[in-house]
Amino acid sequence: MSNGAVETLSEVFDPVAALAPEPVPPVAGGGEANGAHSEETISKGGKREIVLGRNVHTTCLAVTEPEANDEFTGDKEAYIASVLARYRKTLMERTKYHLGYPYNLDFDYGALGQLQHFSINNLGDPFIESNYGVHSRQFEVGVLDWFARLWELEKNEYWGYITNCGTEGNLHGILVGREVFPDGILYASRDSHYSVFKAARMYRMDCIKVATLISGEIDCTDFKAKLLDNKDKPAIINVNIGTTVKGAVDDLDLVIKTLEECGFTQDRFYIHCDGALFGLMMPFVKRAPKVSFKKPIGSVSVSGHKFVGCPMPCGVQITRMEHINALSRNVEYLASRDATIMGSRNGHAPIFLWYTLNRKGYKGFQKEVQKCLRNAHYLKDRLRDAGISAMLNELSSTVVFERPLDEEFVRRWQLACKGNIAHVVVMPNVSIEKLDMFLDELTEKRSTWYQEGGEAQPPCVAADIGSENCVCALHK
Amino acid sequence: MSNGAVETLSEVFDPVAALAPEPVPPVAGGGEANGAHSEETISKGGKREIVLGRNVHTTCLAVTEPEANDEFTGDKEAYIASVLARYRKTLMERTKYHLGYPYNLDFDYGALGQLQHFSINNLGDPFIESNYGVHSRQFEVGVLDWFARLWELEKNEYWGYITNCGTEGNLHGILVGREVFPDGILYASRDSHYSVFKAARMYRMDCIKVATLISGEIDCTDFKAKLLDNKDKPAIINVNIGTTVKGAVDDLDLVIKTLEECGFTQDRFYIHCDGALFGLMMPFVKRAPKVSFKKPIGSVSVSGHKFVGCPMPCGVQITRMEHINALSRNVEYLASRDATIMGSRNGHAPIFLWYTLNRKGYKGFQKEVQKCLRNAHYLKDRLRDAGISAMLNELSSTVVFERPLDEEFVRRWQLACKGNIAHVVVMPNVSIEKLDMFLDELTEKRSTWYQEGGEAQPPCVAADIGSENCVCALHK
Repeated sequence: MSNGAVETLSEVFDPVAALAPEPVPPVAGGGEANGAHSEETISKGGKREIVLGRNVHTTCLAVTEPEANDEFTGDKEAYIASVLARYRKTLMERTKYHLGYPYNLDFDYGALGQLQHFSINNLGDPFIESNYGVHSRQFEVGVLDWFARLWELEKNEYWGYITNCGTEGNLHGILVGREVFPDGILYASRDSHYSVFKAARMYRMDCIKVATLISGEIDCTDFKAKLLDNKDKPAIINVNIGTTVKGAVDDLDLVIKTLEECGFTQDRFYIHCDGALFGLMMPFVKRAPKVSFKKPIGSVSVSGHKFVGCPMPCGVQITRMEHINALSRNVEYLASRDATIMGSRNGHAPIFLWYTLNRKGYKGFQKEVQKCLRNAHYLKDRLRDAGISAMLNELSSTVVFERPLDEEFVRRWQLACKGNIAHVVVMPNVSIEKLDMFLDELTEKRSTWYQEGGEAQPPCVAADIGSENCVCALHK
Repeated sequence: MSNGAVETLSEVFDPVAALAPEPVPPVAGGGEANGAHSEETISKGGKREIVLGRNVHTTCLAVTEPEANDEFTGDKEAYIASVLARYRKTLMERTKYHLGYPYNLDFDYGALGQLQHFSINNLGDPFIESNYGVHSRQFEVGVLDWFARLWELEKNEYWGYITNCGTEGNLHGILVGREVFPDGILYASRDSHYSVFKAARMYRMDCIKVATLISGEIDCTDFKAKLLDNKDKPAIINVNIGTTVKGAVDDLDLVIKTLEECGFTQDRFYIHCDGALFGLMMPFVKRAPKVSFKKPIGSVSVSGHKFVGCPMPCGVQITRMEHINALSRNVEYLASRDATIMGSRNGHAPIFLWYTLNRKGYKGFQKEVQKCLRNAHYLKDRLRDAGISAMLNELSSTVVFERPLDEEFVRRWQLACKGNIAHVVVMPNVSIEKLDMFLDELTEKRSTWYQEGGEAQPPCVAADIGSENCVCALHK
C-alpha cells in the first residue's frame, strides 16, 4: 500500500521551490528617485531567502506623497502611467507563459469596461434587496439559477450566492454542515484543498483526514473504517470534484454507499462538494458521474475564475434552502438577512459570469471541455513518448508529471509543484501550439539536466502516480 | 438610563422597511421573449412581500442558451448590449441619488481599464510569491506599507493583506485574537457591526455584548462590570472606530485603561480595531484620539471601498507580525504560507488603492476629510433649522436623524435605517448641492407627512440620539 509514501510526500515543504528566483516584475520607482523605501530581496547565490514570520518585501511599489507642484508638472501622473505601462507588459508576458493554475486566461470583457466607474456592491443576501441601490442582484440571481439547473436543484428549493473564491465556497458549505450538525465530525481526503482543513480549524470542528488512492480519489475503505470508529457522531463530508493537485474526482456514489453501509441515514450526514474546477466541467463530460442535488448532498461550490475565466477570483455556492435558515439572521441595517460569509460583496463578478454564460451557453462549455480533455491527452501522450513519467486521470484535464529539475523553468511556466510532481492544468486558453512550445522547451532542457553518464537521474514518482505511470530507471 | 430603550430598538426588525418598493432596475429579457423564467415579485398593495427562507426572485436577468444562428444574426450580442446599456443608466441614476452608505462613489479609474483583461490573483500571503505570476503583490505591499505607517507600526513589525471587505478584516482580526487566546472571551459593544457577532458564532467563541452610550460609543462602566465578572478568562475586544449606524468612535484609551483597572495585563488581552470607515479618516482629524500600534492593540482593519472609493468592496488588514505565526501554515501547493481568510485574492483591488493613495496622498485625504466634516455639520444644522431631530457625533461625518415616514423616499435616497432613525454618511462625493437637493425634497415631503392638525406626528428619537437632539412634540 503506497499511501504511506503519499502521506510523507504531501507533508514535505520545500522552501527552495517556493523561493527560486523568477523573472520578477519590474520594480518601478526605486528608493532613490522617489524618496521612497522599496526594498529588494537579498539574494544569496541566486536564491531568494525566506524568513517565516517576516514580511519580506521582495517587490514593492512604494506609495509616495504627491509633491506640491505635481499638478503643474504632471510628474506624478507620468510616473503612474509608466508604472502601469510596464506592469501591463509584465502581465502580458506572465499570462503567455502560464500552465500550472486552473485559470482560464482567455476572456474578453471589453463590453463591461463601462461598468468599472461604479461601486457595485451586492451586500448581504442575493435574494433580498438592501437599501443600497448600486447592485447587480438581477445578474447574480440569473447566474445562480443557471447553476442550480446545472446541478439539478429546483429554483424554489435552492439558496446560493456568488462568492469571492473557491475557498469562500468551502468555508460556507462546511459552516452550513456544522450548523446542521453542531457535533458533526468533518471527513476530508488528504488531497482536499487546504481551505477545508483551514475551515475545520476556524470552526473548531473535529476533522479526520481520510487516505487517498494513487489517483488522488478518496479511499473509501479507509473512509469506512474511520466512519465505523465514530458512529456516534454525525458526519460532514467534503467530497472533491477534482482535487487540486491530481484533478481526481471522488466517487460521490461510493461515498454515499459507504455512509449507508456504516448505518448513517440521511438525517445524520451532510455532504459538501468542492467542485472548484471540475464542478463546471464534469456535467459536460460524457459518461461522467453526476454531481446532482437529486443525490443526498447539501452544497456544491465552484470557482468562477477557473473554467469560466474572470479578471478577479470569484465562485458560486449553491445549497438547499432548508439548510440556510440555520445560518441566517435578520440584520436591519442592511435591510437584508445575511447568510453569507462576507457582508459587502463584489457586484462586478456576477456580471462577468452572466456575460460569459450567456455568450457560451451549455453548448459552448461542452465544446470547450471536450477541447481541454483532448489537449490534455495530447500533452500526456507526448510526455510519455518523450520518456517522461506522467498521469492523466479519467475525467480530468490535469496532467501530472515528473517535476522539472530546474526551478527557473518551473517559475517560467508557473507550474504548481508538490514533492516530486508538477502539473499542467489544460484550460481553454491552453492551445496545442502552447503545449508544443512547452514540450519542446522541456525536452530540450531536460536533455541537459539528465545527461547520459551524468549523475542526475529523473526522480521516481511511482509513489505519487503509480508504477504503471512511472518511467524512472527502476520502473521503465 | 436609556440604554434599555436603545437595546429594544436595536432588536426591532421591520420587514416593511426592508421591503418597501423601490425604483427597481429594469428587468430586461422577460420570460416570454427569451424562453426564460425570470420572476417578478408579487406585489400586494404596493409592498413587496418577504418570505424568510425562500429565494424570492425580485429581479432576475435570466441566462439563456444561445441560438444556433446567433453568431449569424447577432441577436444575442444585441440583447446583451441592450441589457448592459439599460443597466448602466440605472447605475448612473442610483449613484446620483445615494446618501445612506459610506461609499465614496467619486472615482475615476479610467487609467486602469487596460488591466481588466488580466486574471490578477494574489493568492495566499502578500509577502511570499506563489508560482502564479499574474499577481499584483508589488502594489499590495506598497499599499500595506502606507497603512502601517499611518497607524505607526514599523515596516518589519507588521503583517497584513488586502481583504475583500471590512467583514473579512473583522473575521481575520478576531481569529488572530482567538488563536492568541484560545479561551478568550470576545467583548463588543452592541453597536458593533454584525460581522463581529457573526465571527463569534463561526469561531465558537464566548461573546459578551457591552452596552453603549447614547452617542453609540462603548459604555466603559458596563464594560468594567462585565470584565470583572470574567476575570479568569483573557479578553478579546472589538473596538469600533466609527460605528455603522451612528458613526461613534469608541474611546480606545479608556478601553485600555478599563482593562488595566480590572487587572488585565497586556499579555491577557487582544484589541481589534474595526476602523471600517473612520480608520482612514480619524488620522486626518485634528485633535482626534489616535489609532496607533504604539498603544497595546493587536490589529486594525479598514474598508477600501468606503473613504478611498473602489469599484468593488475591499479592505486593508494590518496586524503585528508576532501574532501571525499563530495562524500560518505552510502550503506547498501555492508555494505560499497562508495566513489569510481567503485563498485566491482579487489582484485588482490593490492596484485601485495604490493608484488613489499615490494621487491623493496624506494631504489629499486630509482635505477631503475636512470637507466631509464641514458638509456633515452643514447637513445637521440645516436639519435642525428645519425642526428635524438630528445628531452628529464629534469626529464623525455620519448624520443621524428622524427616519423619514415615506419608505419610497428612504429607498430613493438609499438611506440606511434602524428603528426610528436614519442616517446620511457624508462622503467626498456628497456635495453641498446634493445635500441641498436632498434637504429641499425632505422638507417638502415632510410637510405633507405631518400636516398641521393631522394625526401623524414626527417620532420621538430621544432614546436613540438623546433628548437634547430630539425635537419631537415632547422634547422641543
